[in-house]
Amino acid sequence: MKIGYLGPEGSYSYTAAKCYAPQGTLISMRGFREIIQGVENGTIEEGILPIENSTEGAVTQTMDALMETVDSKIKGELVLQIRHNLLSLGESIGEINYVASHPQALEQCREFLATHYPHAVLIPSESSSAACQMIKEKDQASAYAAIANSWAGENNGLKTLCKDIQDNKNNQTRFIIIGIEDTITTGNDKTSIAFSFHEDYPGSLYGILREFAQEKINLTRVESRPAKAELGKYIFYIDFNGHGEDQKCKSVLERIRKEVNKFKIFGSYPIGRVY
Amino acid sequence: MKIGYLGPEGSYSYTAAKCYAPQGTLISMRGFREIIQGVENGTIEEGILPIENSTEGAVTQTMDALMETVDSKIKGELVLQIRHNLLSLGESIGEINYVASHPQALEQCREFLATHYPHAVLIPSESSSAACQMIKEKDQASAYAAIANSWAGENNGLKTLCKDIQDNKNNQTRFIIIGIEDTITTGNDKTSIAFSFHEDYPGSLYGILREFAQEKINLTRVESRPAKAELGKYIFYIDFNGHGEDQKCKSVLERIRKEVNKFKIFGSYPIGRVY
Repeated sequence: MKIGYLGPEGSYSYTAAKCYAPQGTLISMRGFREIIQGVENGTIEEGILPIENSTEGAVTQTMDALMETVDSKIKGELVLQIRHNLLSLGESIGEINYVASHPQALEQCREFLATHYPHAVLIPSESSSAACQMIKEKDQASAYAAIANSWAGENNGLKTLCKDIQDNKNNQTRFIIIGIEDTITTGNDKTSIAFSFHEDYPGSLYGILREFAQEKINLTRVESRPAKAELGKYIFYIDFNGHGEDQKCKSVLERIRKEVNKFKIFGSYPIGRVY
Repeated sequence: MKIGYLGPEGSYSYTAAKCYAPQGTLISMRGFREIIQGVENGTIEEGILPIENSTEGAVTQTMDALMETVDSKIKGELVLQIRHNLLSLGESIGEINYVASHPQALEQCREFLATHYPHAVLIPSESSSAACQMIKEKDQASAYAAIANSWAGENNGLKTLCKDIQDNKNNQTRFIIIGIEDTITTGNDKTSIAFSFHEDYPGSLYGILREFAQEKINLTRVESRPAKAELGKYIFYIDFNGHGEDQKCKSVLERIRKEVNKFKIFGSYPIGRVY
């Protein structure tokens, strides 16, 4: 089975894809939208996308890209324990003047960097793997470090100066799996939806949450994203426990559909495990 | 009056600060936390911070930094119309192979770039001003473009290849003003709060929104951020119409305080205008 992930090889998406489908054929792709389009036009069967991180919060590009799905839906999820390492060609921690990585990885190690490298110049890169490649090519390579996982370090011939440098030792990223087919109820499912309102008035979101509360359906996540029209207009994203085909959830979804403007069900899927 | 903003000079925060206090002494600062600390220890009197953008959504660093305030509070807001330009030392649009800017500016021009420069390498920079300086120093400078506002272009001697390239022509950023003193009711105010729950159970957020709905208090914004403990634990941010000293709001805030775990009032302030 062909599974698309946000490359290059060695990224956290790659690691997540390996956990999800150790035997799958992993296809490195350039962006979240390309992955979703690949699933929709059949060049890949499934795609894996980061959706939220326990420190950084929502992966907003994924959330925005989900609004553009046509046939594809969320069919699964998994949680990956994120570990960041400080890597360099040089051997000395003391020499580092530049630290490169994906902006989110830099942010996730902010306190470590402020404590140990308050004067280091932070270089945001397209990915942590790209940062590893970049620092190898520098003239004074021992003044440069990258933040990446151990895979990226080993495959770039870099030494690990410091392990597990993420500020939050419980740093986890949740990934979703995108596919085409509908899922069936397993009894331990989650459903993801989004909606917006015609007009904002006191209590519009309240009215939606009431539908869930009255049926004692637990919400596992409530997020908002801009509707991209003007400030103050939002799209709300909700994850809740249950499958869209469960009778209780089905009737709640039908009632919500009548109360909102845009309405989208991203999919129902079994609650994932932590890797 | 000394007002801190996220530098360098010419950033959108600089433009916002100029709109807010044309006669103020603007102090370029390195990060959002430094600005808040500056207000708290008295080295600056006020700070200006971006809090949300109509395309990109929440400025999460500001939201997280707000949780760490001690004496400082939100005392005002303003909305800035954001305009991005494509700037270069060269004169030819056709030659551009690299486009540099702050990641959020790159993201805000994503469709423009995908349409006109599908093969361009995007270079994330610390700020749009830093991108302007960087592209000037390149050997083949005419192959590089930066995305920045007109101020940054003029002050770096760059030519404007293309104006108003942001995908959303109604691209606005809301800024908050941080100060020490309490504000008084003006009759046209907003209040910003945040809270988290002891335990997640069906209806916890619903219970809070009900308090507002029952008093017909309009919520202008509902956001969530990770509590940075584990996936599935969130801090909710709410902005609502009214001043914390208005009787109706005051009693709602008192009731909410009893229902939640962490609770923080960031401040009440007059609703801001658009520049």
